[in-house]
Amino acid sequence: MLRIGILTSGGDCQALNAAMRGVIRGLSSQRDDLEIYGFEDGYKGLIYGNYHLMTPDDFSGILNMGGTILGTSRQPFKRMRIPDENGLDKVEAMKSVYHKLQLECLVILGGNGTHKTANLLREEGLNVVTLPKTIDNDLWGTDMTFGFQSAVDIATETIDRIHTTASSHSRVFIIEVMGHKVGHVTLHAGIAGGADIILLPEIPYDIDVIADVINKRSAAGKKFTILAVAEGAISKADASLKKKEYKAKLANSPYPSIAYQLADEISQKTEKEIRIAVPGHTQRGGAPCAYDRMIASRVGAAAAKLILNKEYGYMVALIDGETKKIPLEEIAGKLKYVNPDCKMIQEAKLMGISFGD
Amino acid sequence: MLRIGILTSGGDCQALNAAMRGVIRGLSSQRDDLEIYGFEDGYKGLIYGNYHLMTPDDFSGILNMGGTILGTSRQPFKRMRIPDENGLDKVEAMKSVYHKLQLECLVILGGNGTHKTANLLREEGLNVVTLPKTIDNDLWGTDMTFGFQSAVDIATETIDRIHTTASSHSRVFIIEVMGHKVGHVTLHAGIAGGADIILLPEIPYDIDVIADVINKRSAAGKKFTILAVAEGAISKADASLKKKEYKAKLANSPYPSIAYQLADEISQKTEKEIRIAVPGHTQRGGAPCAYDRMIASRVGAAAAKLILNKEYGYMVALIDGETKKIPLEEIAGKLKYVNPDCKMIQEAKLMGISFGD
Amino acid sequence: MLRIGILTSGGDCQALNAAMRGVIRGLSSQRDDLEIYGFEDGYKGLIYGNYHLMTPDDFSGILNMGGTILGTSRQPFKRMRIPDENGLDKVEAMKSVYHKLQLECLVILGGNGTHKTANLLREEGLNVVTLPKTIDNDLWGTDMTFGFQSAVDIATETIDRIHTTASSHSRVFIIEVMGHKVGHVTLHAGIAGGADIILLPEIPYDIDVIADVINKRSAAGKKFTILAVAEGAISKADASLKKKEYKAKLANSPYPSIAYQLADEISQKTEKEIRIAVPGHTQRGGAPCAYDRMIASRVGAAAAKLILNKEYGYMVALIDGETKKIPLEEIAGKLKYVNPDCKMIQEAKLMGISFGD
Amino acid sequence: MLRIGILTSGGDCQALNAAMRGVIRGLSSQRDDLEIYGFEDGYKGLIYGNYHLMTPDDFSGILNMGGTILGTSRQPFKRMRIPDENGLDKVEAMKSVYHKLQLECLVILGGNGTHKTANLLREEGLNVVTLPKTIDNDLWGTDMTFGFQSAVDIATETIDRIHTTASSHSRVFIIEVMGHKVGHVTLHAGIAGGADIILLPEIPYDIDVIADVINKRSAAGKKFTILAVAEGAISKADASLKKKEYKAKLANSPYPSIAYQLADEISQKTEKEIRIAVPGHTQRGGAPCAYDRMIASRVGAAAAKLILNKEYGYMVALIDGETKKIPLEEIAGKLKYVNPDCKMIQEAKLMGISFGD
Repeated sequence: MLRIGILTSGGDCQALNAAMRGVIRGLSSQRDDLEIYGFEDGYKGLIYGNYHLMTPDDFSGILNMGGTILGTSRQPFKRMRIPDENGLDKVEAMKSVYHKLQLECLVILGGNGTHKTANLLREEGLNVVTLPKTIDNDLWGTDMTFGFQSAVDIATETIDRIHTTASSHSRVFIIEVMGHKVGHVTLHAGIAGGADIILLPEIPYDIDVIADVINKRSAAGKKFTILAVAEGAISKADASLKKKEYKAKLANSPYPSIAYQLADEISQKTEKEIRIAVPGHTQRGGAPCAYDRMIASRVGAAAAKLILNKEYGYMVALIDGETKKIPLEEIAGKLKYVNPDCKMIQEAKLMGISFGD
Repeated sequence: MLRIGILTSGGDCQALNAAMRGVIRGLSSQRDDLEIYGFEDGYKGLIYGNYHLMTPDDFSGILNMGGTILGTSRQPFKRMRIPDENGLDKVEAMKSVYHKLQLECLVILGGNGTHKTANLLREEGLNVVTLPKTIDNDLWGTDMTFGFQSAVDIATETIDRIHTTASSHSRVFIIEVMGHKVGHVTLHAGIAGGADIILLPEIPYDIDVIADVINKRSAAGKKFTILAVAEGAISKADASLKKKEYKAKLANSPYPSIAYQLADEISQKTEKEIRIAVPGHTQRGGAPCAYDRMIASRVGAAAAKLILNKEYGYMVALIDGETKKIPLEEIAGKLKYVNPDCKMIQEAKLMGISFGD
Repeated sequence: MLRIGILTSGGDCQALNAAMRGVIRGLSSQRDDLEIYGFEDGYKGLIYGNYHLMTPDDFSGILNMGGTILGTSRQPFKRMRIPDENGLDKVEAMKSVYHKLQLECLVILGGNGTHKTANLLREEGLNVVTLPKTIDNDLWGTDMTFGFQSAVDIATETIDRIHTTASSHSRVFIIEVMGHKVGHVTLHAGIAGGADIILLPEIPYDIDVIADVINKRSAAGKKFTILAVAEGAISKADASLKKKEYKAKLANSPYPSIAYQLADEISQKTEKEIRIAVPGHTQRGGAPCAYDRMIASRVGAAAAKLILNKEYGYMVALIDGETKKIPLEEIAGKLKYVNPDCKMIQEAKLMGISFGD
Repeated sequence: MLRIGILTSGGDCQALNAAMRGVIRGLSSQRDDLEIYGFEDGYKGLIYGNYHLMTPDDFSGILNMGGTILGTSRQPFKRMRIPDENGLDKVEAMKSVYHKLQLECLVILGGNGTHKTANLLREEGLNVVTLPKTIDNDLWGTDMTFGFQSAVDIATETIDRIHTTASSHSRVFIIEVMGHKVGHVTLHAGIAGGADIILLPEIPYDIDVIADVINKRSAAGKKFTILAVAEGAISKADASLKKKEYKAKLANSPYPSIAYQLADEISQKTEKEIRIAVPGHTQRGGAPCAYDRMIASRVGAAAAKLILNKEYGYMVALIDGETKKIPLEEIAGKLKYVNPDCKMIQEAKLMGISFGD
């Protein structure tokens, strides 16, 4: 009997189902004695013992289905060591469920926070294999996460649509793209969508530089300027604040998000009409793109192979186009930021894209 | 020589180019002596004499191109009789340009406001043929406007994407759909996208009814509730205000739009986490859907036929699936609202969709 | 207890699931005592008693899912009166299953053939309500069938994609669109996609006219010509044959389909390089478009209303944008063809589109 | 003055315009004295001196436009050394045009054949920079070509659509994917689309293995089997023929393409109904996907940098996610095949996908 548990944790994204399908197909093609425990809503299901006994058929027909058939929730790593409101020790609870079900291993799909807890479970002696999921592509140890390209596709389509309306009227358009800490999605979508200005958390902006770009475009007869702005974009002034001060400032901000603040700042420096689009959670939803389905299937199958070989404690990464196993302890707790000096940004700047710096 | 002027006015939408292509192909297939004056940015170009002399080839290859190759702008009807900052009489200016160019007629593509001015020009003796453009489908005299179905498609896709993420987490989602005065887009997209609650300007909502729906769904084990909300959705309380009072209230509102206000109201009545998506101008942008291209081509060709027959003073409408000419004086100044008692809403209610009333 | 049976029959299409969901939601919002029998693979399931007892939840989450969750098959009306290979009388078998399950009524989703059998069942005393499904939109008694607009969208997208490659090279492109007997999909997609030549079963073509169009375009400096051709397009010569002779000719044809034959004919009359695209069954597949989901939901809800009112023997039609009940005996056995003299074709011709006649 | 020539050659694909835009924006952001000669229809324009003098603005607004604004044609490398029908020496003609226009360099976008001629021009002393274009991703020296991911997306969407119709009926479906010599597109789309069997030119198939997979799926209760088949898929028997013999066999084949042959072979070994879809040139057409626009922009900008640095004789490649210059002599004449033993195929096999071997 091969008994595995599986769960999806953190913000949902495209291709979670494709990845799980990859794991289960990889296992069931080799083993007839597979027993699958699907935990509901991420670590929550593991903590409180909410699970379904599932068959390989339950993972059939879900390759291009958005979301996750298991459900997910955010369970902050920081609070894993803090008992819940009933005094339950969450880590012990998870271990207890794992052992009670006599699991051979846990397959965990998630992003940064998820990987910290996965590593903790590994340290506690559980057999764990993980898969790199996040639209942000900010997971250390892998070139690519599934969910990222789908999010880029959607953000790019948003910019495309705005382009036609921006060309018809004379306006400045701000498209707010997901990404609080890292700007990979904004950078890719901004280039793919032909944004004129791209603002990333990693490159603080100077509002005067932005106003200058807008005014110069206007003077050159360009009717519109399009800004692709990450949720976590930050001005140079704000970037110089202490983290605590900035958090306090944000908490008291009259703006629902950076796009609205930026619109205000720009309207003080230019005379342009400004419009805002906030695609929000649409960037996480819907059918995964072909690329994400392909890499999700691959890392899923590679995870199956690790399990069949009893190799535990790894995340399956994609490095230079190939699947590779990376020890969990090397990944947990690190973020992969956009390097402001990378070739991609140099190339974007050469094409005349401003980063507001 | 057949000399025509053409312009697109008001908010841009999909299939404006397709419609103009239809007109020009319809004329150029019959007349070799066509002379086309394309006015820039709507009535503004006509007022100030900004135009290009164009050839039929300029209208080739634009069938599926979003936006308008002529540009557009909003020129409120109310101010048409008010001289501009230099004392220019706008109506006289338009007539003067028309006569100077010795135009046989003007082809005008636009929505409600545009039609009021078009009718004014007709009253002033100009030959005018118009085409019904607007994403809102609120134009009197036609069953359908081009731009509408494309906007519905995009709003529906937004709801679809939100659906997958809503199913994965446990949340209430508000999708704000374009429509300040009328709710056609929200109604169609809400049904097509499977929204649980649809809020329209024409049916004021009761927040307690909404909270009740959300809580009942929750109690029945449904993880999420999705609201499709028109920009102009309004509570019963606000609907009972005088128009002036409500405008003043809106002007002082701390919320950028109704979705944010509603989120606040719901969070006071339920304990749900709430997320907002505002696709905004994306609903006007990008390639028109097949349906809009088809009807835009048809009304364009029908307009060409009117011109070839020297029949002026009409809008080309779509009624019961056929193109028909409707006198401009019958259309101008009327809005086509959603009828709260129509069959479509009855059917939606039978399917269990709440309109918050 | 309200016991209903439901089945989908004939070629599958988009929005079958949406329509069934509409029926079930419409019933379950009013009745707690609903019992649903879903028959597998169309009439086959009814004949042989293959069914599932289903709950309203089984019809949840399927609004934008392609295909049909019940499966479908083609059971020719002609053979309904002929016993099967084991001597089973199919009509008696269906009645027997219906009565054994004590059904209140049958909900049947299908096209032309399906409606003939549905009418037969009505004549045999069963309570029947039907819904108009087919990509061909050739069903008598309704302006619109669900599945049609989705098929038009896909065929149009195919023409769009071919357009860019056709513009880059210098070629003649033939896109074969579904439609053996009627040309509605080809006509709509041809106009929406900007085809230069549209060939329909209802308008026999003259190859010399086609060659002439191609050569004239070439002479006028146009690099390419695009033909949207219905599967059932037919030359004037072939159209003059007796039906039997033409069938025999087709059976012996060296060409897999009309596109290949036409390519040969064109290459004998012009010197152009020719390319063929046959999207085939892709036109029936994938998520339904917003329009189809909306109308499928509406006719589904309207069918629920009929059942709640115990009104049987009707198809729910869409006429002038509203749902209406049409007696089955008025529909069965009639096809709705493209009228070669309709306004839409006149408008297309005015835009310079050739129909090869 | 910086005078450059630019041309696109070979089969068209998505993102050619995006790549050219990248080059021109990269140059024009640095140099005011840019003079651009755009050659029509590939090397043909260079041979016969057909060109336009273009401005940077001509390359604006084309980022997401399919096809190539310059046109393209296939000019076989083999015949470059053979005079044309008027005795013109093509290579000398190209050099002559290049020198007459006093070009600083040529920017050439193309695939394998194109690169052979580009290398020839380099050997003849011209300054050449090239960009890797092809849907096949079979170009030696780069991990990725633009056009590839867009083609994969379209082929995957085709498989998706077929999936829903295949699930509704009980059938075997063959989707023929572009790729005469290499199977990258088929492999990626087959995995992303969830094909059950993938047939590539690099892995000859055994029809008995295929029939066995189909029959076993049927026995296990699976209603359908989907085959993703490259145009150049080949049976083991045919693969053992001499190349000449196989070519002769193909030339006399009664089948328009491999899909039709395979359908015949399968129907002799199973009793399944079989359907075929041939998306054909749709795989090359339409707007490029975000990924292709991003990499096309990047290699374009990187090419601009080479030109600004006067580094000639290189193709800009994408290796491990970064742009790199690769000497043309290392690339020309080599194809990048799918390695039958690569990890991706191993992973696909572990997931239960058959390659018919």
